[in-house]
Amino acid sequence: MGMTITEKILAAHAGKASVEPGELIQAKLDLVLANDVTAPVSIKELEKASLDAVFDKERVVLVQDHFVPAKDIKSAEQSKIVRDFARKHDITHHYDVGDMGIEHCLLPEKGLVVPGDAVIGADSHTCTYGALGAFATGVGSTDLAAGIALGEAWFKVPEAIKFEYEGKLPEDVTGKDLILHTIGDIGVDGALYQSMEFTGSAIDDLSMDGRMTMCNMAIEAGGKNGIIAPDKKTIAYVEERATRPYKVYTSDPDAKYARVIKYDVEKLEPVVAFPHLPENTRPVSEAGHVEIDQVVIGSCTNGRIEDLRMAAKILQGKKVHKNVRCIIFPGTQAIYKQAIKEGLIDIFIDAGAAVSTPTCGPCLGGHMGILAKGERALATTNRNFVGRMGHPESEVYLCGPNVAAASAIAGRIVHPREVE
Amino acid sequence: MGMTITEKILAAHAGKASVEPGELIQAKLDLVLANDVTAPVSIKELEKASLDAVFDKERVVLVQDHFVPAKDIKSAEQSKIVRDFARKHDITHHYDVGDMGIEHCLLPEKGLVVPGDAVIGADSHTCTYGALGAFATGVGSTDLAAGIALGEAWFKVPEAIKFEYEGKLPEDVTGKDLILHTIGDIGVDGALYQSMEFTGSAIDDLSMDGRMTMCNMAIEAGGKNGIIAPDKKTIAYVEERATRPYKVYTSDPDAKYARVIKYDVEKLEPVVAFPHLPENTRPVSEAGHVEIDQVVIGSCTNGRIEDLRMAAKILQGKKVHKNVRCIIFPGTQAIYKQAIKEGLIDIFIDAGAAVSTPTCGPCLGGHMGILAKGERALATTNRNFVGRMGHPESEVYLCGPNVAAASAIAGRIVHPREVE
Repeated sequence: MGMTITEKILAAHAGKASVEPGELIQAKLDLVLANDVTAPVSIKELEKASLDAVFDKERVVLVQDHFVPAKDIKSAEQSKIVRDFARKHDITHHYDVGDMGIEHCLLPEKGLVVPGDAVIGADSHTCTYGALGAFATGVGSTDLAAGIALGEAWFKVPEAIKFEYEGKLPEDVTGKDLILHTIGDIGVDGALYQSMEFTGSAIDDLSMDGRMTMCNMAIEAGGKNGIIAPDKKTIAYVEERATRPYKVYTSDPDAKYARVIKYDVEKLEPVVAFPHLPENTRPVSEAGHVEIDQVVIGSCTNGRIEDLRMAAKILQGKKVHKNVRCIIFPGTQAIYKQAIKEGLIDIFIDAGAAVSTPTCGPCLGGHMGILAKGERALATTNRNFVGRMGHPESEVYLCGPNVAAASAIAGRIVHPREVE
Repeated sequence: MGMTITEKILAAHAGKASVEPGELIQAKLDLVLANDVTAPVSIKELEKASLDAVFDKERVVLVQDHFVPAKDIKSAEQSKIVRDFARKHDITHHYDVGDMGIEHCLLPEKGLVVPGDAVIGADSHTCTYGALGAFATGVGSTDLAAGIALGEAWFKVPEAIKFEYEGKLPEDVTGKDLILHTIGDIGVDGALYQSMEFTGSAIDDLSMDGRMTMCNMAIEAGGKNGIIAPDKKTIAYVEERATRPYKVYTSDPDAKYARVIKYDVEKLEPVVAFPHLPENTRPVSEAGHVEIDQVVIGSCTNGRIEDLRMAAKILQGKKVHKNVRCIIFPGTQAIYKQAIKEGLIDIFIDAGAAVSTPTCGPCLGGHMGILAKGERALATTNRNFVGRMGHPESEVYLCGPNVAAASAIAGRIVHPREVE
């Protein structure tokens, strides 16, 4: 009986020849991640358990990205707990103000995640790393604490859904549109505790950045993980960065799937998810007249260089609408630097956008762009739950960087071709 | 009887041939400024008084710089009050996210303040504009409300102190050091309700940026205003930017001063103000071993291009100390763009500093760099009161951009030459 890529990775990390969906396993972890929101909880759990140790100081990654630079005393105190822990345990990969980035942009860029890895992170979007052919999933802070101390975690092996995206992507349709369309199709619980395996010619054509955007949002359909088998693009990306040896797994032709879902991507157009769930999707042409107060371009979903290029291409020589605050968050310092080099930051400033140091910022209602009552944001982020970006009576619409940039100019949600 | 430059400006705006210290006058205003913290209070005062009008939509400037992009729902709501007011009254100079900057960097840069102006702003550092040969002073939100509606304000004409800075500034001694040294000398109430007139060959030698730094901190000695008579540098600066005609005033040779204070600048070295008052100054060589957690370079005091150049010169090819968070805030989008053009932002990123969109941020304990209990910041900002940048048990030390940059590298307060 064949196995899926996810089953193969889990089997290898559990020291077994094979695993089956539903099976409970104990797996060794290649990497354990926490951020400034989740690490303090884990650190307290470790203290409670008198487990003041890390299993491997090279394999525990701490990224201070949610509330830094600190917005208030409370977030400063939280951050300090992480800093003190990182220093005490001499954590090799501790990223803080300045030397930092949004965790899910940073770890692939730094070569800390490689194909074949099993990774847990106390952040739901840890599933991003599936784009590298790794098994990566979000966990709670208690599981994370055990992972930090022991380098292991238990899993119930998920069954898998195979998504086949066939055809050539129309102009203006991005990885974000593919995943939003998918979530709109299957619903926010459509892949509950399942592995979402993305395949097909349209996935082959996607860049690594586009693939990361897709895997990033697997959790928004309830997925345990999102994953894409490594190909030449993956290997090229990893070869430039990997800090460890890697292993490529692929699904067997006779692997068993709970479902196989096929999409003809040639019929798609850019997608917008309306409040208050990522599944409330509409083709942008059917968005109607929706005026916006703020546009956010960035986040672990769409803060990579390709995303910024896409936004800059549209904003070049144009002006952000006078009623719109457009805020751009490069995912990491390296992406920021590359964007400067390519002249993208100049384009953003000339257009009247604000450019921030990398941070999760407004995506989670953290800081750097919180909404007042009745305000409406269009964002390249990943969640549009009630009050996600501020006031409970504010609204968040989700889309890709091209729709976001075009809409920033128009002052309302529009198709990119409307501002050409 | 001769008059000082401040007396002449006030007399002209009161429609009188002369004024004397202590005299109460009603003066016409050239410009009325408020920000996102102070404008909402004024707007409510106007509503209470049923004065829903602005005296001149070209002369009321609203800058959203303290809490934008918003850090929480409360600041988002405050900001919205300002935005709604600006739109309702079609305010010409309304600066918001993206098209923005720190008010006291922005107004001179945009040519909105010119020599000979009388300006009030609901922000204590409005005195910055004295560097252009204008009378500019901070007021409360109630006076500001009257100013918005009527374009006038009452003043008690201040008596003046003449400061004479003679000699050639030693290398590493900046405008910031001159004003810190002065405040250390006369105390934080040393110029209470007095006009601080800065003169002498060292002032002549200072750039416009350095002069703005000096006038900016007049309030930290209790001064009603700080002022420097326009010279060729002023005129060159203003000619490039002025949006209105201007008038140059200078003090008469027989003008009367409450005091004349002379400094031989050649004896000075860079200065650091210790917690918790700007008057607690020490030469940096006498700072002792003070380790720091955060360095802030920017603010209305030291966020101009010359300040960034000074910091970049020191940070180039170096790394920020691993225990230090170094955060750099360009004063305006134009300064930010210029810093990109000159490669300064690249230098900051390579050194491991974070670069923020322009905002007042941590200077006032707002956001983007708040301190936890027991933490210590060295900052190019203007105030180091208890809890100014965060926790009541945190500490702020003040200095110029060169000492700040050098100390960011060293991890403790040092003279710039120590990291050469």
